[in-house]
Amino acid sequence: MLRTHTCGELRLSDANKHVTLAGWVQRTRDKGSVLWIDLRDRYGITQLIFEEGKSPAELVAKGRTLGREFVVQVEGVVTERLSKNDKIATGDIELKVTAITVLNAAKLPPFTIEDDTDGGDELRMKYRYLDLRRNPVRESLQLRHKMAQQTRTYLDAQNFIEVETPVLIKSTPEGARDFVVPSRVHHGEFYALPQSPQTFKQLLMVSGFDRYYQIVKCFRDEDLRADRQPEFTQIDCEMAFITQEDILNMFEGLVRHLFKNVKGIELPSVPRMKYDEAMQRYGSDKPDTRFGMEFVEITELTKGKNFPVFESAELVVGINATGCSEYTRKQIDELTEFVKRPQVGAKGLVYVQYRTDGTIKSSVDKFYTPEELGAWTAKFNAKPGDLLLIMAGETFTTRKQLNELRLLMGDKLGLRDKQKFSALWVMDFPLLEWNEEAKRYHAMHHPFTSPKPEDIKLLDTAPGDVRANAYDMVINGTEVGGGSIRIHDRATQQMMFSHLGFSEEEAKKQFGFLMEAFEFGAPPHGGIAFGFDRLCSIFGGADSIRDFIAFPKNNAGRDVMIDTPSTISDEQLKELALITKK
Amino acid sequence: MLRTHTCGELRLSDANKHVTLAGWVQRTRDKGSVLWIDLRDRYGITQLIFEEGKSPAELVAKGRTLGREFVVQVEGVVTERLSKNDKIATGDIELKVTAITVLNAAKLPPFTIEDDTDGGDELRMKYRYLDLRRNPVRESLQLRHKMAQQTRTYLDAQNFIEVETPVLIKSTPEGARDFVVPSRVHHGEFYALPQSPQTFKQLLMVSGFDRYYQIVKCFRDEDLRADRQPEFTQIDCEMAFITQEDILNMFEGLVRHLFKNVKGIELPSVPRMKYDEAMQRYGSDKPDTRFGMEFVEITELTKGKNFPVFESAELVVGINATGCSEYTRKQIDELTEFVKRPQVGAKGLVYVQYRTDGTIKSSVDKFYTPEELGAWTAKFNAKPGDLLLIMAGETFTTRKQLNELRLLMGDKLGLRDKQKFSALWVMDFPLLEWNEEAKRYHAMHHPFTSPKPEDIKLLDTAPGDVRANAYDMVINGTEVGGGSIRIHDRATQQMMFSHLGFSEEEAKKQFGFLMEAFEFGAPPHGGIAFGFDRLCSIFGGADSIRDFIAFPKNNAGRDVMIDTPSTISDEQLKELALITKK
Repeated sequence: MLRTHTCGELRLSDANKHVTLAGWVQRTRDKGSVLWIDLRDRYGITQLIFEEGKSPAELVAKGRTLGREFVVQVEGVVTERLSKNDKIATGDIELKVTAITVLNAAKLPPFTIEDDTDGGDELRMKYRYLDLRRNPVRESLQLRHKMAQQTRTYLDAQNFIEVETPVLIKSTPEGARDFVVPSRVHHGEFYALPQSPQTFKQLLMVSGFDRYYQIVKCFRDEDLRADRQPEFTQIDCEMAFITQEDILNMFEGLVRHLFKNVKGIELPSVPRMKYDEAMQRYGSDKPDTRFGMEFVEITELTKGKNFPVFESAELVVGINATGCSEYTRKQIDELTEFVKRPQVGAKGLVYVQYRTDGTIKSSVDKFYTPEELGAWTAKFNAKPGDLLLIMAGETFTTRKQLNELRLLMGDKLGLRDKQKFSALWVMDFPLLEWNEEAKRYHAMHHPFTSPKPEDIKLLDTAPGDVRANAYDMVINGTEVGGGSIRIHDRATQQMMFSHLGFSEEEAKKQFGFLMEAFEFGAPPHGGIAFGFDRLCSIFGGADSIRDFIAFPKNNAGRDVMIDTPSTISDEQLKELALITKK
Repeated sequence: MLRTHTCGELRLSDANKHVTLAGWVQRTRDKGSVLWIDLRDRYGITQLIFEEGKSPAELVAKGRTLGREFVVQVEGVVTERLSKNDKIATGDIELKVTAITVLNAAKLPPFTIEDDTDGGDELRMKYRYLDLRRNPVRESLQLRHKMAQQTRTYLDAQNFIEVETPVLIKSTPEGARDFVVPSRVHHGEFYALPQSPQTFKQLLMVSGFDRYYQIVKCFRDEDLRADRQPEFTQIDCEMAFITQEDILNMFEGLVRHLFKNVKGIELPSVPRMKYDEAMQRYGSDKPDTRFGMEFVEITELTKGKNFPVFESAELVVGINATGCSEYTRKQIDELTEFVKRPQVGAKGLVYVQYRTDGTIKSSVDKFYTPEELGAWTAKFNAKPGDLLLIMAGETFTTRKQLNELRLLMGDKLGLRDKQKFSALWVMDFPLLEWNEEAKRYHAMHHPFTSPKPEDIKLLDTAPGDVRANAYDMVINGTEVGGGSIRIHDRATQQMMFSHLGFSEEEAKKQFGFLMEAFEFGAPPHGGIAFGFDRLCSIFGGADSIRDFIAFPKNNAGRDVMIDTPSTISDEQLKELALITKK
């Protein structure tokens, strides 16, 4: 080793030891008679000291030549500091340097290697290896490591076997777009990269593996929205001989284990909510339950008073923004503008101010008497000081819009603390989802999800009403995982494929192996997959997943550090029998 | 759960318990008055019993309808067996069945689900999910899981951080062929799948991650030799601020930890051997050290006696096949045929039989006196009963050929026991390797390997003599891992690229980001990668890696179960702006 200790290791109890350290020059302070250098490695920072008169002159001179981010090896004697620094673990000591070796010089980095850097996004991505030196980024990846460790600890203890499934698989038209890999040996044929190991983990259940998991890279060639990556990581799990209840308990256990062992937080047991209820109470299938502000429906109370908007509305529904009654006209106008943005798409917003003096003022005073408005405030359990924000229209759309407003108000009222965590199971999702563009139903999760047995009879008459044995784990308003009980018999699977518009031939070509497997003794089974990047970012209290991925791609799917995708040689194209159209 | 216990769990102490099991019908024995069924799951086998007269008639009848591999749930009472089976953990008990539910019927499997199956390779690959039900295959994958677990346990304890590196990277012409992935967004551009995370792990060292590891999928689009897979898994590691000595100690520690914790074997400390010495003593850079039979050079003893073959030979070298002096003429002819096969390519074989009666007989009696041959046997330390097998010719070639013969004799003499393990470090490899086809030197490991500082001066005059700071871990004659101390400064790296025939422009296009990174403070670093599939197969005592991979591809790179690679839709090709030539 080029060192006897790390830069985070030395304490007062090491005083007078002769040690060797190695690391990067973080910072130099030159007071003329004394030169201090902060030496940094992954483990911490140790202060080096050179003293004019006491240290050999050449040594001090050499210390002065060291620039930021130089890599050096230093020998010296551990000494108690005069002015201690209680912000760092090594703050009681410094190293009186006796020898120094420059292991590698460094050009001035294009941005400062500090917690708050002056580097913009693009520059930091291009020099990602320098960005990774910054504490917050390194700590995010250390958190990720710990999350993976603890995930494995939990699942190993529960008798899960980690099995690697293949990366070079087969393209399937269902779901998102596949990345494909041309075969050099079989011209005109392609492998595809997996969007998930779904069919393989089901086959492992058919094989009797009983409990499978994998922390695995998956791939999706989609137009990237902000904070989406073409390659992403899942905690992928499957169990056999279980009911939905067993899966919910097992993976609630995982999430609680992670909170306890990674964050030191005892998460209470995870409540469960049906999809229909989540939509009704929060207008979202992934409600942020860190705060209340639940939807209150007042449709009946608003009818017959000639207010055209409410009169024609299928649903009139609102939230109570407690303590906001004294919002100014400007503030309320901003909320109205927010819901009218195309991303939200509402036509307008009705407000009722239950003033601190007990009076009620609203934007619909013309249509409703103070008594009628009083009935509203009563239904909302509002108190003087509260502000009701009300929207109206078609049920599903209005709920979605009010959900956006609720989240905005949660932000404004400081109710979405990133260091507070609230988890929720959302269950009983619809099996099918109408696709307006394709004019047919798609599987909401995927075509292997089992319908609730009692709903199968609705498949022909009311497909949209069929519920699935499917569940999502939601934390702080983000879906971090989802899964289902699978179909495990050929007849049901074949029926599902036909309902999803697969011809028999297509189904056989794409999933023939799975349907055949179901005929050789497939056990009842189900599973779940967690989005590992997102889960890490939530544990890290961050909005973006990017700093929880060592080498992420930008929003155009490009790695600007290594500059890929890029052209390949004509020889490579020829071997693959491919022609590219420009 | 659809069960209260697994099929491997019940013991005599559970007698009289009412339990529920679920699993597959392994086997049925029907004695008329009694029906036994072996029920199997991942955890073991439990015997079910139905008794005519005692059990309800419908139940017995139902039991009789169950075919092989049916999936059933059974309830029953745990009972002591009359005739116990000490071969299985549950052999003291059986389950008196009180109720049975068929969870899924099964067609007759295309081969028997037994330890020794009647299924051929191709059939087993097509129905891999059935093959995976067989004990030996499932146990191989359980071993792999344990290997991964223990690898992580060791490296985590040594402060390594597991970091995921990207799968969609950039194609580089050096090394084997890349698989490429066409970009839909950037037409005419491609990602490539990594042959290893080499450059990324080096960048992580530049970032100060200090100790990195990853158990990671890698990809190589090569013409598949037997037992090679297009996708394979590495234990990939890198350390900063270390010397070669530190790496050897750290990863010898890993291998010994694995032997201890996976196999219960205390491996002695791993000996080290220089490449030159390995070639001289064994004719191989990956000698099988489970047995001796080392090379003995007798060039000097053979000269001046007018035997043309030895007279013209650069090297005369042999092995002592102890106890083989009484080999028949036919046996010796077979050995001669073996070395003359094109795969070995020798011109012939000289033998000296040191007969049990003390006489010496050889194929070169015409040229050498018994006294002269006696000097040979003395040099070989041969005893009556031994057989010397001697080859001659150009040094490197002759050693390679004799190595093949040595391994064959090791097999014949039972010296290559798959349950015995012998590990070895081979060190000081040549840096460069002459490529006859390209008429230039290639990097023997990869272009980032550092030359030994004292040899750098030879780079211009005798490139083939330059040694590298490179090392391989060899177990039982198989290279299971290899690594090197890396170049960590731009000047040396640039010089290496130029010696390897990269133009400055090419080097910049392919590895500009790495060379630039070396200018921003790169620490001294080095690492190693283990072939995980191969390591598992050696621990499992198997010749092939195939059963240590859940879903392997065949020798044509095809997954015959899911039938990939396969064609993709015209729409997909259009989106990728690709035309395939047929």
